[in-house]
Amino acid sequence: MDLWHIERQSEGTDLRIRIEKILFEHQSEYQSIQVIETETFGRVLVVDGYIMMTEKDEFIYHEMMAHVPMSVIREPRRALVIGGGDGGVVRELVRHECLQKVDLVEIDGDVIGTSERFFPSVASGLSDPRVTVRIEDGIRFVAEAEEEYDLIIVDSTDPFTGPGEGLFTEEFYRDCSRILRRGGILVNQHESPYYCENASVAKEMHGKMRRAFPICTVYQAYIPTYPSGHWLFGFASKDVDPPGDAVPGRMEGIDTRYFNEEVRKASFALPNYVRELLG
Amino acid sequence: MDLWHIERQSEGTDLRIRIEKILFEHQSEYQSIQVIETETFGRVLVVDGYIMMTEKDEFIYHEMMAHVPMSVIREPRRALVIGGGDGGVVRELVRHECLQKVDLVEIDGDVIGTSERFFPSVASGLSDPRVTVRIEDGIRFVAEAEEEYDLIIVDSTDPFTGPGEGLFTEEFYRDCSRILRRGGILVNQHESPYYCENASVAKEMHGKMRRAFPICTVYQAYIPTYPSGHWLFGFASKDVDPPGDAVPGRMEGIDTRYFNEEVRKASFALPNYVRELLG
Repeated sequence: MDLWHIERQSEGTDLRIRIEKILFEHQSEYQSIQVIETETFGRVLVVDGYIMMTEKDEFIYHEMMAHVPMSVIREPRRALVIGGGDGGVVRELVRHECLQKVDLVEIDGDVIGTSERFFPSVASGLSDPRVTVRIEDGIRFVAEAEEEYDLIIVDSTDPFTGPGEGLFTEEFYRDCSRILRRGGILVNQHESPYYCENASVAKEMHGKMRRAFPICTVYQAYIPTYPSGHWLFGFASKDVDPPGDAVPGRMEGIDTRYFNEEVRKASFALPNYVRELLG
Repeated sequence: MDLWHIERQSEGTDLRIRIEKILFEHQSEYQSIQVIETETFGRVLVVDGYIMMTEKDEFIYHEMMAHVPMSVIREPRRALVIGGGDGGVVRELVRHECLQKVDLVEIDGDVIGTSERFFPSVASGLSDPRVTVRIEDGIRFVAEAEEEYDLIIVDSTDPFTGPGEGLFTEEFYRDCSRILRRGGILVNQHESPYYCENASVAKEMHGKMRRAFPICTVYQAYIPTYPSGHWLFGFASKDVDPPGDAVPGRMEGIDTRYFNEEVRKASFALPNYVRELLG
């Protein structure tokens, strides 16, 4: 009898992945955490029933979240990651020697522990001496923070369930804006434009981000293990032209498997139906 | 008891779509043809168990197959479509008034009949007076053709099964090259780079295309109902720079839901792992 991870994409539409083995199951204070072994994707981290990352394609999401903004920020010294407890975004950030300080604020310490145990190559960046890991509520952290950041990355779960919900409010974006220095950039996971459930969230959150930031758009990547495979990232700032010019030499010596300069520029080219959705 | 269309993406990985109603089932001389009604995608055309198109997203595939090459061919007069019996590519082509002749060569007349009956808005272009529909083998047609074309579009099924197989050989590409005039372009459906089954086909066919055409690359689109959602199109010519400059005014008056000039240029920006796959 086969065991399957069945993930709803939309009404009557599922992605179904055969589970070779359940490696870990745990109910944390905030959410259910599962690690499964699969043939096609290797190990998969599942939170509240949704795929967060797979060994096969985590590089796409993490590279695109980190290197797209890092390519254009003039003098990035300090980065803040909200969520992202698996460590993948931090792993990509610390490859940039110009960053002096990376704060990771993850509400659920069990996500970090799970990643360190089952996805050591993803969590590897968390031990970099420039990284400070804080197990606390990102919403409160941002509301109370006084330091400014050059880069804020909101690597959250979906707003449907769990602790991610408060990371999709206008108030949260305004707090982020307050601690984002001039020339800085905020990026976040911005759902998919395709299936109506994700698209309505994308539309709503984009409206809220727009009210908090004068410059606001989305960019996109092919991530097959997220619903529809067409995934959006929000890009917001006070003064940085979104596709802008890359800082010369910024990616020098950083090998990537998805990201490159052409892909970065191209990722901002939105199909007409996505433009219309976001207004 | 629910009835599902289960489509294998890779080992132990399926896309599963609930069937509201089976509208049509038929075994043609060449393949099985099915039309199902679904909640999320509307009507879906299934050939030999694989989704060929859905009402929800057929515009993405058809616009990207037709308008990407049409944007850059200098004086397109004559187009040839091999396969494409649903009529979607032809519908997009005949929106270009500069085209004087469109030949559609589809081996399976039952695909055309099914599309006219169940997808009239897709098949609509087939009745344009500039269109000639030929129910015959595209491989033989191209081998024997003496006329030249400005544009050849190979809109085939996968090579895994059925009559599509011969449209993936070096000999076929050489025949296409022979009847492609200077300044002309060939595009084809080129599988996905993501799941290993599709990726190995993409790699192999790209090698064969390269041996037949001096200029050869791929471009891509987000098509959620094809495996992985990351779909490639082959672009081959004797002399046309792939992303090149669009012919001014070529898209004037043609409204599209996915395609635009930025998307066209961006579609040629390939992630590093795709570049490596194709060599």
